[in-house]
Amino acid sequence: MDVGAAIRTKRMVRTFAPRPIEPEVLERILDAGRHAPSSKNTQRWDFIVVDDRALLGQLATVGRYAGHLAGAAVAIALVTPDPARERSHSILWDLGLAAENMMLAAWELGVGSCPATVYEHDLARELLGYPDDRWCGWLLSFGYPADPSDLTRPPRKGGRKAIDEIIHRGRW
Amino acid sequence: MDVGAAIRTKRMVRTFAPRPIEPEVLERILDAGRHAPSSKNTQRWDFIVVDDRALLGQLATVGRYAGHLAGAAVAIALVTPDPARERSHSILWDLGLAAENMMLAAWELGVGSCPATVYEHDLARELLGYPDDRWCGWLLSFGYPADPSDLTRPPRKGGRKAIDEIIHRGRW
Repeated sequence: MDVGAAIRTKRMVRTFAPRPIEPEVLERILDAGRHAPSSKNTQRWDFIVVDDRALLGQLATVGRYAGHLAGAAVAIALVTPDPARERSHSILWDLGLAAENMMLAAWELGVGSCPATVYEHDLARELLGYPDDRWCGWLLSFGYPADPSDLTRPPRKGGRKAIDEIIHRGRW
Repeated sequence: MDVGAAIRTKRMVRTFAPRPIEPEVLERILDAGRHAPSSKNTQRWDFIVVDDRALLGQLATVGRYAGHLAGAAVAIALVTPDPARERSHSILWDLGLAAENMMLAAWELGVGSCPATVYEHDLARELLGYPDDRWCGWLLSFGYPADPSDLTRPPRKGGRKAIDEIIHRGRW
């Protein structure tokens, strides 16, 4: 699948088939994250891969909109230094670059994904065991879509702002 | 170019050929950014497209490592609400998703790119004219590489951490 097509066709997928993700598919997704660019190439990220059903169910409670984690084949928790403590904007920007790589690489392989924002940081830390100087702002759910037509459904009309609403030419 | 190949082969490009970017290529890059997912689909971004040589030269002074903007065919300034004022992590994460879409879409079309972090916010605001309630943390340089072998050169050895350094299975 070419890059442009992946970007245009990718949908959020929140409901997943029980089918597991093959190890080689998972490795390609992880490797896409690893290859992301980062500020001064600092690569300030660790990825925790979770496929234990009980743990996925618990992780679904770390945020108000994290319920989709319970049905994911795999979740990848994105762990970084704490951006507030580090007073760093670039940690979050870099993490977005890496997450988009993983979600696009997954889509090309027929795997859907959706990010979940962590609201309950103490709970996430307890469940995932990362050290005190690290922080987890998001987890990504991955899995084959429960409804395979998710992969080919045309975009919802009006789902994105029109190009003229967001583009300024020359100057604001 | 398939997604996996784009992710694996993409390099930062900081030195650009004088060749302009064709309007249809630029529109595909912008459209890739527009299609990015965002937290609750808020799309809190505006993109300012700059191809004026004098202005590009001035923008090259907004940050310590922003010199590459002077030689870009086009710069895209990424403008959002101020993440500090909004106390929002997701503005920056979302912006990373959109930026990666644009840089990958460009790479597929033979166009190199590099982000520049803004350090001099007052100067960036003066040059680009965005309102007081907006903020520009990054600009992206785009252009055909001065050295076309940038597009095919194998990755530098050791440029990324090994997979085992960053992946944790099951739990940290």
